Amino acid sequence: MSNYYLGVDMGGTLIKMAIVDSKANIIEETFVYTDTTAKPKDVIKNITDVFKKFKNYHKVDSIGFGIAGAINFKDGVVRYSPNLPKWNKVQLKKEIEQITNKQVFIDNDANTAALGAYWLDIKSTVDNMVCVTLGTGVGGGIILNKKLFRGNNGTAGEIGHITIEPNGRKCNCGNIGCAETYIGVRHIVKETVDLLSKPNKSKHILKLADNDIKQITPKILSQAAKKGDLVAKQVWKNVGEKLGILLSDIIDFFNPDAIVLCGGISNAGNLITLPAKQEIKKRAFKTSAKSCKIIVSKYTSKLGVVGSAMLAKSL
Amino acid sequence: MSNYYLGVDMGGTLIKMAIVDSKANIIEETFVYTDTTAKPKDVIKNITDVFKKFKNYHKVDSIGFGIAGAINFKDGVVRYSPNLPKWNKVQLKKEIEQITNKQVFIDNDANTAALGAYWLDIKSTVDNMVCVTLGTGVGGGIILNKKLFRGNNGTAGEIGHITIEPNGRKCNCGNIGCAETYIGVRHIVKETVDLLSKPNKSKHILKLADNDIKQITPKILSQAAKKGDLVAKQVWKNVGEKLGILLSDIIDFFNPDAIVLCGGISNAGNLITLPAKQEIKKRAFKTSAKSCKIIVSKYTSKLGVVGSAMLAKSL
Repeated sequence: MSNYYLGVDMGGTLIKMAIVDSKANIIEETFVYTDTTAKPKDVIKNITDVFKKFKNYHKVDSIGFGIAGAINFKDGVVRYSPNLPKWNKVQLKKEIEQITNKQVFIDNDANTAALGAYWLDIKSTVDNMVCVTLGTGVGGGIILNKKLFRGNNGTAGEIGHITIEPNGRKCNCGNIGCAETYIGVRHIVKETVDLLSKPNKSKHILKLADNDIKQITPKILSQAAKKGDLVAKQVWKNVGEKLGILLSDIIDFFNPDAIVLCGGISNAGNLITLPAKQEIKKRAFKTSAKSCKIIVSKYTSKLGVVGSAMLAKSL
Repeated sequence: MSNYYLGVDMGGTLIKMAIVDSKANIIEETFVYTDTTAKPKDVIKNITDVFKKFKNYHKVDSIGFGIAGAINFKDGVVRYSPNLPKWNKVQLKKEIEQITNKQVFIDNDANTAALGAYWLDIKSTVDNMVCVTLGTGVGGGIILNKKLFRGNNGTAGEIGHITIEPNGRKCNCGNIGCAETYIGVRHIVKETVDLLSKPNKSKHILKLADNDIKQITPKILSQAAKKGDLVAKQVWKNVGEKLGILLSDIIDFFNPDAIVLCGGISNAGNLITLPAKQEIKKRAFKTSAKSCKIIVSKYTSKLGVVGSAMLAKSL
């Protein structure tokens, strides 16, 4: 039996699958579209049928799944997933193990992304790393002593709900001033729309969005900022500064070797990392700040599938 | 050789020493007054002379030191200690090892306090714990997977400098709105003096402080609050709420099994833990908050010396 691992990244649009070697090199990969209306049993059948089409499937040691939502790593149960509304209390580990006769591990997608970043961006060269997922939600995965750290009940790394403005914006989670209410996609777009509703100097955002504020996306905001749009630049500066407060907190808490930023918003690159680094310089504990590399992932689209495979390896 | 460990808590006033068994029971203990004007070499000679007076010294396996300041755990060097102004780049580990022929470990006092709390308050029954030291400074020590977690260069757990009010008070560290600027002793006293300088309903604080605002201490504030003093109660409520923001951040980051509060300010007990718990209920991630015990240490004066001994054990 060779040391190959199969990773499955269960997204709301795509289910990505890959066979990966013990150094996280992708040997084979494929995907299917996610049928969010199908019964879990049928989705599971479909996925395991795809497994068999991999040429190296017989060499696979174990299988890992990454899924958004409340995932019970220990029991292998998907308690709830926002991407898969029909998936409630699905015994995913047990069912896949029965079909495949291979050991199965499941975890939430912030943790599998962290494992992916640890192997792809960091090449597993450090001991301690925090991965910050910047998308609609803001999540985090923590690698300590080269292993995922999950905490008491698997919710360690809920950094999107860290308070960064105690009297700030109301978050859906019930808290006030969560990081996500400043650096999550919805809030970035809302802030832009608010700025555009007042007298402003934007020249590119609405043009790029076909004059429809509903079409404004982070991608458009990046394009506009790169063309010099003043509103877009301001929005990214604000996001970067708030991100910097959050990263300073992470640095003070963990004194990590590295922080990897991933997810859609991380594509803004320097537009957010420069103001974030300024903020870290002002706020974080000096020794810890100096020794912590801040990296934007080069592999955002692969982190989930490779990290899921490495989840199967690491245990 | 029995499993006994010698702990040394190097404070600015006292140097406490104890021989402790492998379950953290104190077998023998003593102390000397700290001579802050003496040369490190003389202090070291004095301490090791005291060691020899312990009846069970011959049974001691290894020795641990806890010291405030910039302590290099790996090299065993005291780079700088605010309590011991003459101690700059002292090779404490090497020097004590040469004299005693026993293995020596040194660490900062927030880490040894955490080890002390882990053994005395928690009885080492959980995997992950954060200890928050509430004094003039606000510090933290982190136990993960039953071991101290130090981060990249030993500064993990610098929670006093976590930002809890991004546009708040200026801290000596250079940051704005650090937790310490709201819940550290100096700031608690300053807030009280500010409130007393305006029209107020305080009936007890000044009386307990012999009508001298310079004599106001956290202890007096606790006494006043217990007598129903409205200003003292307000001050503690504010401290508790700010502490609650910090603890919510810790809970969201680590999902720890327990948080132990220690240090002088923790003696305020319910005066701060009740508002802190209210704040956690409002702010922290629900699953993580429910599973995290918040404990006030019953052993504040012993944590350093016992933790230093357990530092010698744990490695």
